[in-house]
Amino acid sequence: MTPVNENFAKLPGSYLFSTVARRAAAYQEAHPEAELIRLGIGDVTKPLVPAVIEALHRAVEEMGRAETFRGYAPDLGYAFLREAIAAGDFQARGCDIGPDEIFVSDGAKSDSANIQELFGPEARIAVCDPVYPVYVDSNAMAGRCGTYDPEKEKWDRVIYMPCTAENGFTPALPEEEPDLIYLCSPNNPTGTALSRQALQGFVDYAGRTGAVILFDAAYEAYIEGEEIPHSIYECEGARTCAIELRSFSKNAGFTGLRLGYTVVPRDLVRNGASLHAMWKRRHGTKFNGAPYIVQRAGEAVYTPEGQAQIRAQIGGYKDNARILREGLERAGYQVFGGVHSPYLWLKAPGGMTSWEFFDCLLTRASILGTPGSGFGPSGEGYLRLTAFGRREDSVLAMERIAGMEL
Amino acid sequence: MTPVNENFAKLPGSYLFSTVARRAAAYQEAHPEAELIRLGIGDVTKPLVPAVIEALHRAVEEMGRAETFRGYAPDLGYAFLREAIAAGDFQARGCDIGPDEIFVSDGAKSDSANIQELFGPEARIAVCDPVYPVYVDSNAMAGRCGTYDPEKEKWDRVIYMPCTAENGFTPALPEEEPDLIYLCSPNNPTGTALSRQALQGFVDYAGRTGAVILFDAAYEAYIEGEEIPHSIYECEGARTCAIELRSFSKNAGFTGLRLGYTVVPRDLVRNGASLHAMWKRRHGTKFNGAPYIVQRAGEAVYTPEGQAQIRAQIGGYKDNARILREGLERAGYQVFGGVHSPYLWLKAPGGMTSWEFFDCLLTRASILGTPGSGFGPSGEGYLRLTAFGRREDSVLAMERIAGMEL
Repeated sequence: MTPVNENFAKLPGSYLFSTVARRAAAYQEAHPEAELIRLGIGDVTKPLVPAVIEALHRAVEEMGRAETFRGYAPDLGYAFLREAIAAGDFQARGCDIGPDEIFVSDGAKSDSANIQELFGPEARIAVCDPVYPVYVDSNAMAGRCGTYDPEKEKWDRVIYMPCTAENGFTPALPEEEPDLIYLCSPNNPTGTALSRQALQGFVDYAGRTGAVILFDAAYEAYIEGEEIPHSIYECEGARTCAIELRSFSKNAGFTGLRLGYTVVPRDLVRNGASLHAMWKRRHGTKFNGAPYIVQRAGEAVYTPEGQAQIRAQIGGYKDNARILREGLERAGYQVFGGVHSPYLWLKAPGGMTSWEFFDCLLTRASILGTPGSGFGPSGEGYLRLTAFGRREDSVLAMERIAGMEL
Repeated sequence: MTPVNENFAKLPGSYLFSTVARRAAAYQEAHPEAELIRLGIGDVTKPLVPAVIEALHRAVEEMGRAETFRGYAPDLGYAFLREAIAAGDFQARGCDIGPDEIFVSDGAKSDSANIQELFGPEARIAVCDPVYPVYVDSNAMAGRCGTYDPEKEKWDRVIYMPCTAENGFTPALPEEEPDLIYLCSPNNPTGTALSRQALQGFVDYAGRTGAVILFDAAYEAYIEGEEIPHSIYECEGARTCAIELRSFSKNAGFTGLRLGYTVVPRDLVRNGASLHAMWKRRHGTKFNGAPYIVQRAGEAVYTPEGQAQIRAQIGGYKDNARILREGLERAGYQVFGGVHSPYLWLKAPGGMTSWEFFDCLLTRASILGTPGSGFGPSGEGYLRLTAFGRREDSVLAMERIAGMEL
């Protein structure tokens, strides 16, 4: 009988956001009159900016004419986009990253799930706790996480780095030595960001131990001021120990358009193998390029008009974050994040569990959040809200919360 | 030191089409005056049809307005597309496949590389020889292929099913019992198609042994007449043993737009595990949906106008195939395929190897083919040409070949 991948059966429950979506649908069906405010999934709501829409129309026109039609894209992305990325996201910040170190993809979710394929089955991973579930789930599917203990809500081969109010949501360096360290800053779900010093500490640690850091910078566009690094390549030594994952979803509203990229520096070598060459091979063998029209849309993000328009759009979401933060604080909640990030990390009141608080908000205020425990054991007792809703919904949500009896 | 995936180092050379592209670029640089005719990579050249272009423009408009903007797509694809596919590609042919058994993706290359993740590391694969390289390479990266022997050009754990002129390019049932059987019909690269009887034979075999068939039907739109099945679900018993992979690349020219889908029937269970549920989990965890605008483009393919337009487009490519086939036969070559398929499989004359013949065509006629040996050991001595070029190039290529001295 054909053997199946037995690691799938070890995964607890379903993918977090699928569960949240199912519960929301069930509630809506039972209460068709309820006007649900969706602050759960981190999905944007503002339309694509005009520079992007124009670029899409132009590229669609090209695809409709024989002289300008484009078939298969280069595996690793069109040069026009890779050059715009290298210049706009890295060289402009003094980071030494070239266009040929950029690998364009259909989004950071795919990349963050696929990147583990470069490593051996025995590699041990360390993750922040709480954390975006894809890092752990993708490694669990590859058999790297050991066994899941539903009591502790932990995998026995994963090294968890707690991020709690007590440590200011800055994880300590792991005590057990990991091979792969997933870091996300500004962090999903806690909405907090690593300082330059803290991130440099991880780079130095990886430099000493030989670990590889997988740095997810999907939310970098929300960083304010100069204190927080936007890229791990702002840290000294990162070219030899770090891979960076980037997304167009949250900075330019591409969640439904799908575009992301991964940076694998040429200097990143382990056991004599170039991870750059390996990812190139992986990309070339298992992926066939992001759509031409979407790559042109991505290019438009880096034009002066595109930059001005997405800055304004992000500003709108940051206003929402402020509205949520201030509203929650006024209502007496303990709340973190929401400054360098579109996420707010809310302590459940009265000792409620995450799912209890999720149900409470859903049934008493028709507000959809995401239970913190879905992001890891240290997320228990918290709930994530996102600032990606509409402004009026953010205001309305805070009115409902202010009037909500607990 | 962080362990890398050692299976990558076992892969021979680079991905076939990357090598072909590099050699072509080197030749073009050395001979800037040469007018290269590219009949190598199976990439389409005709622009997207008007129904698709209109659907794209409409969907782009929607993405630019707040009321109609769409964020994350449903993981498994929009219902409008899954319903159009189930009705148009399956129910219209009497195949019992429902919309919820369709998983929309960014293309059949990704799906055919990722589908192996559902199976155990010890699963043994059988492939046609010659074959599309992604099936073997993706399994080699997962450690399922054993060791590569460069002398024999074979992996020692792969079961090869030779497809040669001698057996009419219809593989015999494997002698050693595989767990996974990759079939592609109409086949890439040989351009030949499995008869209904031959395909039913494989389904019956899988029914008896418990093997799972991974059926790649990317080229089904080129099938003529009623004798050759378009879908494996036209065969009795396939719902319990077969997964089908489909592409919009070759039927609607989406190579640069990226859209495909995989059918995993609910009845497909191995060792108590539903492969349907596993693929759903895999898709939900590692993929974030195909772009909304591209899914709308896919939907347009199933409208009456879309169908008429793509039929005409495919007719043009089929004309090219006829031009190539007749031209090659007139020039005295032994040629296969090109009837139910856009590919022609050409025997190298005078005992040349595939790469020798590749160089010969490149340097003497500035024609770019793909060496048959790149598709597997039984491809040695053959070369693949594609009918996806422009008509005038197909005509010119045959003129050059007619005048070429060997």
